[in-house]
Amino acid sequence: MFLSARISSASKSPIQSKTLITLLPIFRRLSTAAVPPMEVSASEETLRGNLAEKRAAVDAQAEAVRKLKAEGAENSEINAAVDTLKALKVEASAVSRRLQAVLSSNGGGATDREAFRQAVVNTLERRLFYVASFKIYRGVAGLYDYGPPGCAVKSNVLAFWRQHFVLEENMLEVDCPCVTPEIVLKASGHVEKFTDLMVKDEKTGTCYRADHLLKDYCKDKLEKDLSLSTEKFTEMKHVLAVLDDLSAEELGAKLKEYGITAPDTKNPLSDPYPFNLMFQTSIGPSGLSPGYMRPETAQGIFVNFKDLYYYNGNRLPFAAAQIGQAFRNEISPRQGLLRVREFTLAEIEHFVDPKDKSHAKFVDVAGLEFLMFPRELQLAVSFSLLQGIVNNETLGYFIGRVYLFLTHLGIDKERLRFRQHLLNEMAHYAVDCWDAEIECSYGWIECVGIADRSAYDLRAHTEKSGVPLVAHEKYPEPIEVEKLLITPSKKELGLAFKGNQKMITEALEAMTEAEALDMKAALESKGEIEFQVCNLGKSVSIKKNMVSISIEKKKEHQRVFTPSVIEPSFGIGRIIYCLFEHCFYTRPSKSEDEQLNVFRFPPLVAPIKCTVFPLIKNEKFDETAKIISKSLTAAGISHIIDITGTSIGKRYARTDEIGVPFAITVDSTTSVTIRDRDSKDQIRVSIDEVALVVKEVADGQSTWADIMWRFPTHSA
Amino acid sequence: MFLSARISSASKSPIQSKTLITLLPIFRRLSTAAVPPMEVSASEETLRGNLAEKRAAVDAQAEAVRKLKAEGAENSEINAAVDTLKALKVEASAVSRRLQAVLSSNGGGATDREAFRQAVVNTLERRLFYVASFKIYRGVAGLYDYGPPGCAVKSNVLAFWRQHFVLEENMLEVDCPCVTPEIVLKASGHVEKFTDLMVKDEKTGTCYRADHLLKDYCKDKLEKDLSLSTEKFTEMKHVLAVLDDLSAEELGAKLKEYGITAPDTKNPLSDPYPFNLMFQTSIGPSGLSPGYMRPETAQGIFVNFKDLYYYNGNRLPFAAAQIGQAFRNEISPRQGLLRVREFTLAEIEHFVDPKDKSHAKFVDVAGLEFLMFPRELQLAVSFSLLQGIVNNETLGYFIGRVYLFLTHLGIDKERLRFRQHLLNEMAHYAVDCWDAEIECSYGWIECVGIADRSAYDLRAHTEKSGVPLVAHEKYPEPIEVEKLLITPSKKELGLAFKGNQKMITEALEAMTEAEALDMKAALESKGEIEFQVCNLGKSVSIKKNMVSISIEKKKEHQRVFTPSVIEPSFGIGRIIYCLFEHCFYTRPSKSEDEQLNVFRFPPLVAPIKCTVFPLIKNEKFDETAKIISKSLTAAGISHIIDITGTSIGKRYARTDEIGVPFAITVDSTTSVTIRDRDSKDQIRVSIDEVALVVKEVADGQSTWADIMWRFPTHSA
Repeated sequence: MFLSARISSASKSPIQSKTLITLLPIFRRLSTAAVPPMEVSASEETLRGNLAEKRAAVDAQAEAVRKLKAEGAENSEINAAVDTLKALKVEASAVSRRLQAVLSSNGGGATDREAFRQAVVNTLERRLFYVASFKIYRGVAGLYDYGPPGCAVKSNVLAFWRQHFVLEENMLEVDCPCVTPEIVLKASGHVEKFTDLMVKDEKTGTCYRADHLLKDYCKDKLEKDLSLSTEKFTEMKHVLAVLDDLSAEELGAKLKEYGITAPDTKNPLSDPYPFNLMFQTSIGPSGLSPGYMRPETAQGIFVNFKDLYYYNGNRLPFAAAQIGQAFRNEISPRQGLLRVREFTLAEIEHFVDPKDKSHAKFVDVAGLEFLMFPRELQLAVSFSLLQGIVNNETLGYFIGRVYLFLTHLGIDKERLRFRQHLLNEMAHYAVDCWDAEIECSYGWIECVGIADRSAYDLRAHTEKSGVPLVAHEKYPEPIEVEKLLITPSKKELGLAFKGNQKMITEALEAMTEAEALDMKAALESKGEIEFQVCNLGKSVSIKKNMVSISIEKKKEHQRVFTPSVIEPSFGIGRIIYCLFEHCFYTRPSKSEDEQLNVFRFPPLVAPIKCTVFPLIKNEKFDETAKIISKSLTAAGISHIIDITGTSIGKRYARTDEIGVPFAITVDSTTSVTIRDRDSKDQIRVSIDEVALVVKEVADGQSTWADIMWRFPTHSA
Repeated sequence: MFLSARISSASKSPIQSKTLITLLPIFRRLSTAAVPPMEVSASEETLRGNLAEKRAAVDAQAEAVRKLKAEGAENSEINAAVDTLKALKVEASAVSRRLQAVLSSNGGGATDREAFRQAVVNTLERRLFYVASFKIYRGVAGLYDYGPPGCAVKSNVLAFWRQHFVLEENMLEVDCPCVTPEIVLKASGHVEKFTDLMVKDEKTGTCYRADHLLKDYCKDKLEKDLSLSTEKFTEMKHVLAVLDDLSAEELGAKLKEYGITAPDTKNPLSDPYPFNLMFQTSIGPSGLSPGYMRPETAQGIFVNFKDLYYYNGNRLPFAAAQIGQAFRNEISPRQGLLRVREFTLAEIEHFVDPKDKSHAKFVDVAGLEFLMFPRELQLAVSFSLLQGIVNNETLGYFIGRVYLFLTHLGIDKERLRFRQHLLNEMAHYAVDCWDAEIECSYGWIECVGIADRSAYDLRAHTEKSGVPLVAHEKYPEPIEVEKLLITPSKKELGLAFKGNQKMITEALEAMTEAEALDMKAALESKGEIEFQVCNLGKSVSIKKNMVSISIEKKKEHQRVFTPSVIEPSFGIGRIIYCLFEHCFYTRPSKSEDEQLNVFRFPPLVAPIKCTVFPLIKNEKFDETAKIISKSLTAAGISHIIDITGTSIGKRYARTDEIGVPFAITVDSTTSVTIRDRDSKDQIRVSIDEVALVVKEVADGQSTWADIMWRFPTHSA
């Protein structure tokens, strides 16, 4: 369940801090050396307090001056008071400037980030990495197409995902339809709860997300309103922290209290009401079978649990995986590729015995070092609590594997962290959740959710379908268990209570062990007992002949239990967008009169691995280029030939801009040069060897640094 | 546009014949040696005629006998007549038996096919290649999940598709959303025309496809009713042939005429009416933007034509490709994986200058030999027409590439043919269409459609969006063209015709060249002319000052035109299902007491390439198996280890059944055996070499026959 509906994409934790820890000590105690400084936030609050004091002092002094003047005090006295006032004003203004500076540094250079994003997005759209879908019809908000280079990156990311997770871990991959009947999504809770709160412009009918409006208002106030009182400041900080917990009524009250109106028209807004985010449709011609486009791929795995467990030889643990489209009818999509109405998810459901969540391969990731952002750090409570911050080894193993996956793709280690969900973010059944968050120009973005969802999903489908989705563990030898047996006598109950018999029977059967034993004792001693039947709303008198209660010994041969599921869920589009930002940089052209764009994609994800350029227009060079192209095809290296007469520098720039890592330039019929995109170093290689050398670096068997020394350097 | 809505999946051509031709002579004349025999169909008709004659003779003779008896004729006379009647009855019954035999052989061993299909489907479902989706909720008709082996086959098929088409042909791959706004599908014609005719059970409301009911009725009659009159026989054959051309009224009339009722209840049926096959939904929260789940992926490419053309350096030809889900809300899905409500399409749109549809690489496929089934053979007309049966070289090139793709996957050459669309099957704008049809237990199934759709799609979106989707060709030097210039004088027309001015202006501007020149001549000679304005429904008198008509010479620098598109469209699920059938066979177990199932998947598509089996439970062998597993992982070979103590024969059988081509059996710590699935041959290879040897055969660099001789044979 990637991105539960009401969890906003930007991190909403009040404190943004980083802690570098290895995965190894997650079951040990963290050293306090890891405590992050929190000056920024503290100093903002201090400055706001200072400013309020200074402003109060200014007001008091101004009042004093007015009073002196009114009383006709002496000029010297008035002048002195005015000087004090001026000095106080200068002090207040200095504090105000400092606060302003702190606020804009908190904002993190919003203008710079905006400009950077614009440069990336312009390049991406111009080079057709992605475009707004149905552009010739003015597009649809929240829908995007991947053009050729974007599509190649996506297909490389998915191929690597399949390699890294499905193949290396022997997962069971499945492929289920997007069209899903209502009953499945009723069982999962989506029909009832997969909603966002919406408000409507009362005059135009335009729809907005209620929490977005409140969030934007508070953020704006906090960033720009220097005269905010300390109380208001604290309150708005609090509103932002608990935004996702607010009920429709609470949200509505806050919107009213702050006088928030429709952003476009300033018209009044309706009360907030829930809007279901699923695309609804109808299956079959009768119009009687409602269905939805799946909001996640996970349910397709859960409903197949029984078959998959059998396929796996009735053994736990095992993982199933699915890559596919998911759909969410967002109220107001924003942030480009980050919040869209249709996206590719890659989800893993790892089924495990709830009594044993150890992982055989945990040792493989235990030594990794990366940024963890546990719950306790987010709330700044006592660090003595930081023992065993990740709930179990399997969850820890996946965190490690996700880290390896993302950094292999080219995500910057320094801008990747694993943030633990706050308790108010987690569903009641969840044991522990961690998000892989990647920092980009929009802030920290949730790109992978890794959750221990306990047995919730399998239990929900068991209940709704009546098919037990359980696992079995055979005991080495049968064990004896005591079982409480409650047998109501329907006949006697019927005679006594007529039409209420069924409800009373059910209530008797539903008694806890303690209640039943109490009743047994009472019936044996007194012969009857008053019994509260909730569904009837009254109590009835139960007599000894109406129910038999006993404890029997039984031999059990196996343990039957509902497995827990640990779910790493990847938003592929978000990962790709963050990758675009992390790989993008500019450098001056040779003549230094313009900036050239470069994507430093690792060969693994680069849309095209190699280009072949005849240095000048020449038949022999074109022929050599074709021979090289054939050997590259034979080696399975995706490449393009550019035989246009454009200058070699321009051709390099054109392909640097789509992130092609290697360029072969044909300047002779016996040997050619290979150029590395980022260092711009060139080496000279014979045409017989060139395809294999490129394959070696493109497949990641060697790095450019490795092969640089094996061949003569070529200087242009 | 794969599978236009009203084209049923089983071939509906009246004559099923095969012609082996090479692609090369498609632009030449076919030798008449290729004419197929048509006895089967002819003898059915002859026999039906014979039977009718014999039965008429029986009836006449019976009447004669009755008459003789009534007239009180002599016993000897009556006996002789009765003997003649008996003899005639024997003859009639012999003809009836022969007809029965012909009908069941036409049916092609329906029982055998049914049994074979059941064996394949049982294996596929038991081994989780696929299962009905949402099975625990009793499923949804027409929706299927691919389980682990099916999913792996699918992902191998798609990877090979990408390699064979996108990479080898440098196609521009794109990835567009499934959710599509209404305007796009209005332009494409889907909102109006993507329908099937439906009838409802008037009492229960159950829906049926009208053409299916009529087809089933006629087929049943033709197969089982021996007493069908020659007229009825001919009529029903004709109904089946033109089924797709019948209007709602004609279909309704036939249903009434034949007295066809609801199959389940025998209740009367409603008149047929069109049901749109798209899943409808609503985009955004307002409920005001209708959308659909795309019924094909092609439209996403068409609406991006302008950007893709630019991406390709404004050069033609180029091809764009897309792999993705498509959705069709079938009225009554049937035939398992063949007619489903959601499926994966892989579509190519090859854009080309309509004046030059040659293909640079045609020579690469020109020598191929395979089964072609051109239109003329289907209708048995004069073979002198069989010149240039495939419209153009690019269409021919794709037919060849599709043939190579399918046969590489493991589709049997003998059960693959390319059938040309009959003229009544093609849309009015289509130039030529060929279906790659694969024969399976359901008959000949359309799996790939290869169509020259001319400029239809780009023109439709140009018109609706107002964005010109055109290509440009610069002339070597500007050329002079004569252009007709019609300039109505709005002022004069307004004075003369007031409110009708606009319509008259438009009618004048819309004149053909000939009409305009006639008017020009008339105005010059007579000064005025009567002019019929259709939209006004009357003619008006046009005077010389109301319009100026002239021919001007203009220089044009480039040709602007709408490219043609040639579209190969692959139904991936259908191809996979046919592949399953073509690869399936059974062979006796060692003890010959049961039949074992085998899928002879080529390594390219096999879900798992290799298994590793320690021969007996033994720690050292398990250790060796793990070492081999690591080297297989390093070589990128998907594999599984089975260390259960099951007998080696059972383990082989278990993996033969999911089509694993190679098994490594560990019976020593220095060398192991590799077993080939189909021949069951084994060779002995050292453990250092084994991964590379398996890689060599699994990657298709060598065949099993190639490597057999390099290693000692192992006999079990």
